[in-house]
Amino acid sequence: METKPTVAAPRMRPRLAITLGDPNGIGPEVVLKCLSDARLNKYMQPLVVGSAHVLRVHANKLGYRDTKLEAVTEVPETLPADRITVLDTYDDRKPWVDFGQVTETGGRLAMHAVAQAVDLCCAGQADGMVTAPISKAAIAKAGFSEPGHTEFITQRVGSTAHTMMMVADGLRVGLVTGHVPIWDVPKGITEAAILEKVRIIQDSLRTDFGITRPRIAVLGLNPHAGDGGVLGHEEQDIIIPAIQAAAAQDFLAFGPFPADGFFAMNSYRVYDAVLAMYHDQGLVPFKTLAFDTGVNFTAGLPIVRTSPDHGTAYDIAGQGKASPRSMRSAMYVAIDVARRRLRQAQHQASTP
Amino acid sequence: METKPTVAAPRMRPRLAITLGDPNGIGPEVVLKCLSDARLNKYMQPLVVGSAHVLRVHANKLGYRDTKLEAVTEVPETLPADRITVLDTYDDRKPWVDFGQVTETGGRLAMHAVAQAVDLCCAGQADGMVTAPISKAAIAKAGFSEPGHTEFITQRVGSTAHTMMMVADGLRVGLVTGHVPIWDVPKGITEAAILEKVRIIQDSLRTDFGITRPRIAVLGLNPHAGDGGVLGHEEQDIIIPAIQAAAAQDFLAFGPFPADGFFAMNSYRVYDAVLAMYHDQGLVPFKTLAFDTGVNFTAGLPIVRTSPDHGTAYDIAGQGKASPRSMRSAMYVAIDVARRRLRQAQHQASTP
Repeated sequence: METKPTVAAPRMRPRLAITLGDPNGIGPEVVLKCLSDARLNKYMQPLVVGSAHVLRVHANKLGYRDTKLEAVTEVPETLPADRITVLDTYDDRKPWVDFGQVTETGGRLAMHAVAQAVDLCCAGQADGMVTAPISKAAIAKAGFSEPGHTEFITQRVGSTAHTMMMVADGLRVGLVTGHVPIWDVPKGITEAAILEKVRIIQDSLRTDFGITRPRIAVLGLNPHAGDGGVLGHEEQDIIIPAIQAAAAQDFLAFGPFPADGFFAMNSYRVYDAVLAMYHDQGLVPFKTLAFDTGVNFTAGLPIVRTSPDHGTAYDIAGQGKASPRSMRSAMYVAIDVARRRLRQAQHQASTP
Repeated sequence: METKPTVAAPRMRPRLAITLGDPNGIGPEVVLKCLSDARLNKYMQPLVVGSAHVLRVHANKLGYRDTKLEAVTEVPETLPADRITVLDTYDDRKPWVDFGQVTETGGRLAMHAVAQAVDLCCAGQADGMVTAPISKAAIAKAGFSEPGHTEFITQRVGSTAHTMMMVADGLRVGLVTGHVPIWDVPKGITEAAILEKVRIIQDSLRTDFGITRPRIAVLGLNPHAGDGGVLGHEEQDIIIPAIQAAAAQDFLAFGPFPADGFFAMNSYRVYDAVLAMYHDQGLVPFKTLAFDTGVNFTAGLPIVRTSPDHGTAYDIAGQGKASPRSMRSAMYVAIDVARRRLRQAQHQASTP
């Protein structure tokens, strides 16, 4: 005989707001390809945020004749699994799609959807968001000064402590410094910055990935991790003290490891995340290993946000060539993280 | 009916001088493991340079009872295939082996062999050399100021224009800057430096790897190859002009490519070599892709020199755990390059 659950069952299928990205890139195409597979509905309730017209233009170009779209202007109570629901509140009902082109319309349309998806998450109307790629040049034309999604979203939710984390099967990579020239990288390597990234990554591994005692590998800055000071002083002066300070705070942080040997030995497999010092040091091995399944996850935010690991790919826009693998992975990561957060929220609500 | 060849047949089995490296590391072990496979004798004539006693100590430790060693003090006319010939001219006949330890004796012994192998190559008594790993700390104890093999060898042969090239199946990676702190990398990125590396790599691909019209991919320095100047100026100011200058000199140089996307897309497969701007940018993807088969080749030298892609590995010295794969690959690359150079020398000698 079954007993009734004392805790309400978790909302098993998180509702994800999925933005279409730049209308002239591959974003609408990879979203369509993912959502055409009805099995995803077993795991989530997708709510596309963007222009239904744009999605139709892409569907026609791809020859998807059976795609059922429903445009809505308010978030509906339920999302039927037999069609794609598009929350479409942009003033222009038929924005122009210009495949492969940087346009002001493209930038404005893309960011309208991102802003709305953030607001849905903050209001609890969505459990997470997945963003298709935007064009930095297009959003600049539309008057946005942010270099990309992450800056826009973090500002809108008022977050100051977050970090980009690249996620793939068995490999998670965070960065101390991000989109800065190599020349500026050493300035960004401080004990405080490393400690903060270790803390954000550890919190996220626990909360979002369900790892109770996460182990974090910290890479060196210089070749051979400075080789005892011969090839640079930052390891001795900054990185080792930061790791020691992290250990004193009961973080399981290890290193600094020479980046080349670390990936050669597959050492990443015994750690839950790797903290790289700069963009290429972390993203080159990540992309080499994860090919087209990598996902960009913004750790440390109050809302769940993922995106695929590729850009607008204007050169192949509207041609049916784009792989939906990274977008699909981005949806799965968002589903997993959203479920864990929902379960924790329920648990907290039900414990005194 | 066969006609007699008008050109003398190439010496089919190049004679390679193989140095044992640090006696307390895994060098003697990986050499033994490689040379225990008699099939290698079909392709080369190995002449070990170092202490026969050290090799015996390692063979005993590994339980290799059937290894036949012959110590000689002069280079013999022929090298019998049924034993390992060791050119042993070090003054101490029984130097102490202290597994896993940095010792002055270890450093002195290792460098004695390297010097002798260089001289054999320069005198035409060997067609190439393969160097087992040395310890920077040990050679410093023994009074050598060079940071490693490459600097010592290039000084001894009087070369000023050479470059380290990492070689594996279908992947060759050269570096503009090498063992320098990240802080110093931008200073080393000049148009002249890039052009020189492109020239050395192209010459080596032609001469040593038999590629008539080699295609070289040049990476950017900054994230996203500077993203049009937003993430650093070196691409616009230095790297693009260098590539244009190279093209004007009829080199097939392309780029600059963002390093992460380049390896994500497997783009390296359509180029004969990749020129990275700094150590980790080139070696992290190389080691991630090549695992334990990578070979270090010094391009641009008058002599042929390769080495495995690992260090002394003191922590597993004398334990039988070391993989000989990288050393075996180093021998094969040296064989291939030496054969090509021998054939070209014969061809040049036979044409008016």
